Amino acid sequence: MQPNTRIKKWMREHQDEAITLLQQMVQCDSTQGNEKKVQQIVADKLSAMGFDIEVWEIGGNDLLNHPYFYSPRHSFQGSPNVAGRLKGKGNGKSILLNGHVDVVPEGDLKQWSYPPYSGHIIDGRLYGRGATDMKGGNVSLLYALEALHALQIHLKGDVVFHSVVEEESGGAGTLAAILKGYTADAAIIPEPSHMKIFPIQQGSKWFRLHIKGRAAHGGTRYHGVSAIEKSTMVLSHIVALEEERNKRITEPLFQHIPIPVPINIGKIQGGDWPSSVADLVIMEGRLGVMPGETVEQAEEELENWMAGLAEKDEWFQEHPVEVEWFGARWLPGSIDSHHPLLDLLKAQYEEVLKKPPKVEAAPWGTDGGLLSQAANIPVIVFGPGTTELAHYPNESIDIEHVIEAAEIMAGTLVKWCEVAD
Amino acid sequence: MQPNTRIKKWMREHQDEAITLLQQMVQCDSTQGNEKKVQQIVADKLSAMGFDIEVWEIGGNDLLNHPYFYSPRHSFQGSPNVAGRLKGKGNGKSILLNGHVDVVPEGDLKQWSYPPYSGHIIDGRLYGRGATDMKGGNVSLLYALEALHALQIHLKGDVVFHSVVEEESGGAGTLAAILKGYTADAAIIPEPSHMKIFPIQQGSKWFRLHIKGRAAHGGTRYHGVSAIEKSTMVLSHIVALEEERNKRITEPLFQHIPIPVPINIGKIQGGDWPSSVADLVIMEGRLGVMPGETVEQAEEELENWMAGLAEKDEWFQEHPVEVEWFGARWLPGSIDSHHPLLDLLKAQYEEVLKKPPKVEAAPWGTDGGLLSQAANIPVIVFGPGTTELAHYPNESIDIEHVIEAAEIMAGTLVKWCEVAD
Repeated sequence: MQPNTRIKKWMREHQDEAITLLQQMVQCDSTQGNEKKVQQIVADKLSAMGFDIEVWEIGGNDLLNHPYFYSPRHSFQGSPNVAGRLKGKGNGKSILLNGHVDVVPEGDLKQWSYPPYSGHIIDGRLYGRGATDMKGGNVSLLYALEALHALQIHLKGDVVFHSVVEEESGGAGTLAAILKGYTADAAIIPEPSHMKIFPIQQGSKWFRLHIKGRAAHGGTRYHGVSAIEKSTMVLSHIVALEEERNKRITEPLFQHIPIPVPINIGKIQGGDWPSSVADLVIMEGRLGVMPGETVEQAEEELENWMAGLAEKDEWFQEHPVEVEWFGARWLPGSIDSHHPLLDLLKAQYEEVLKKPPKVEAAPWGTDGGLLSQAANIPVIVFGPGTTELAHYPNESIDIEHVIEAAEIMAGTLVKWCEVAD
Repeated sequence: MQPNTRIKKWMREHQDEAITLLQQMVQCDSTQGNEKKVQQIVADKLSAMGFDIEVWEIGGNDLLNHPYFYSPRHSFQGSPNVAGRLKGKGNGKSILLNGHVDVVPEGDLKQWSYPPYSGHIIDGRLYGRGATDMKGGNVSLLYALEALHALQIHLKGDVVFHSVVEEESGGAGTLAAILKGYTADAAIIPEPSHMKIFPIQQGSKWFRLHIKGRAAHGGTRYHGVSAIEKSTMVLSHIVALEEERNKRITEPLFQHIPIPVPINIGKIQGGDWPSSVADLVIMEGRLGVMPGETVEQAEEELENWMAGLAEKDEWFQEHPVEVEWFGARWLPGSIDSHHPLLDLLKAQYEEVLKKPPKVEAAPWGTDGGLLSQAANIPVIVFGPGTTELAHYPNESIDIEHVIEAAEIMAGTLVKWCEVAD
């Protein structure tokens, strides 16, 4: 039997094990600072399959002083990283498999139909915080490796595994793993792409705008300048910048996306009294960073653009909008459109699912940007979860997709790393 | 010597005492819930002048169930009301003097040149939150009474004093004082009219708009509907209503006012994550109520107008903007244009300042509306502060105006309540 045929057969016979593993992982609350328990499960799995692993709490000057280090945390206690390497037999290309175990907070519990760490299974879907983002993807990776291990399919190239913390707040876990030397010739990250293949991921950076007004009593509002009114002008100015930036995009993978690299204003707050004219509005948003530009270039363009408000309204000449950069940043990531790993993954997809894959540009950033930019590793995002369910109450994943993705991954590893005699 | 001559002389000799009193009152932070300290100063002053006073935390069923009761608060702890009566010798008309001690929050501290509760005096102006709105006016009243007391000028009619809380959020303090029987034949409120006489005051009502969107990830913002974007449409729709309403005003007292009865949006808040599409924006504002219309009529017009958004954008057909009425409402207030108190006040103004007074419609509501409508007391607004500075950073008052207003008040009391033999 061909390796792929054996893999398929083995996977279908053992799929309950994969489901149980996913259930166990989802049942671990692995919000920031609480990743230890789930990491132990991953570490045990990797060890059992012959990986040389390291489990460590990230930190140290190399990491903290790295130009790509971003984190709201000062200490990473309670958040161990896991990385490991399965040595190949030699003369093969290596692969890096990267997944994060940190999950975003569960939000309003009243909006959940089941407790968020229950791992309930209903109608083929497994429910819980992190099911789709991205423990389902992690299980696809582990199940692919499990199949190769069980079937004693030995590869020529090394398999490197990152089970990282801190993806949701800036990527310090992946950066720490890179700095420890856990790198490879190419990488796959099974973030929730809904089984689409994303060879390009946009980066992003958060910003805060301070829009000034002049206070007055609401009954004589004509004596004041409303920061709320001015903020509508700022908003349309930002939409114009978004248009301007997106016009420049020629990459065909973006062509079916209405706004390839959006600028999103997600939060607004201003004024402190209904009958006063607001003298300050704060808007917070996310600037999409285009593949091919640096975060710094994107930042500079937004800052210059905001200065241009002074030409539209003289209020802004003396009261310029202040731009503040804060919080997380995700670097854009990519793989060459003719890269052999991309071709292999597409072919495996078609072999397993009997239809061509959808290949698109990712609407969000992942730790793949760090792999591309800090370690020069080409990276593809491909995973079984669904973006639309990530970060929401009642997050869930289609179990069938987890198994399908595992089968596609295993076949890809066999082709990319090659089977040793 | 005539009473007015003695009053003028006494006031000029003792004006440092009035300035010190104002300074002390401004140095008390009397934002909502913190009015106790400043009220103690007023209560002590009134007691020393022979007033029978009451100091009490407002509340009780009579107040809370009154149709004119409006407040965002459930408890008034920390906010005592002060009211008192100086019995006249009999057979005279009584006067009610009303001022509030609550002040609006200080806003953005960076916009203040001095700390907001400093009471600094520079070039004849006293600076601080509440200086103009309306502790300066309160001091004019107290200084007028102080002069009569010091000069042993006894009046025939009673002088009733309200030093109230909650004016900035609905008038519960004045209503509580009325319900305790502190009423009179006519009233003067020294709100910041900039030495103009306001026989008419517009009312107002607070509202909250709930503007809905649909959440999505910021990187795929085109899958969502931004409540922040929709709120800009709501804002311009409200400006159109303001225009529509103001076109209807014919009252000549409004003719020099740029927007006679404004609608102000003072507060905005929406979204909870920079890289999510906001699914809800809350805007809070103040609807000006025209003299001659009821608050209910104005409310109905705004509600119907907001329903009209559905014609401008079909999103609003299924997601109508919810209008909520909350917090404060100020009733429009007025005095008959031929009322004898109005004539007396105008004459005193001319006698003291040697020029005719400016008589206009007030650009805002005061507790005068409650006096007019809940207690049927004709009311005039006349005070030394400046509307343009109320609720602003660097709020201040011209000290000379405080003394001039006190002199005009004292003379008016002498004429209205009449001097006893």
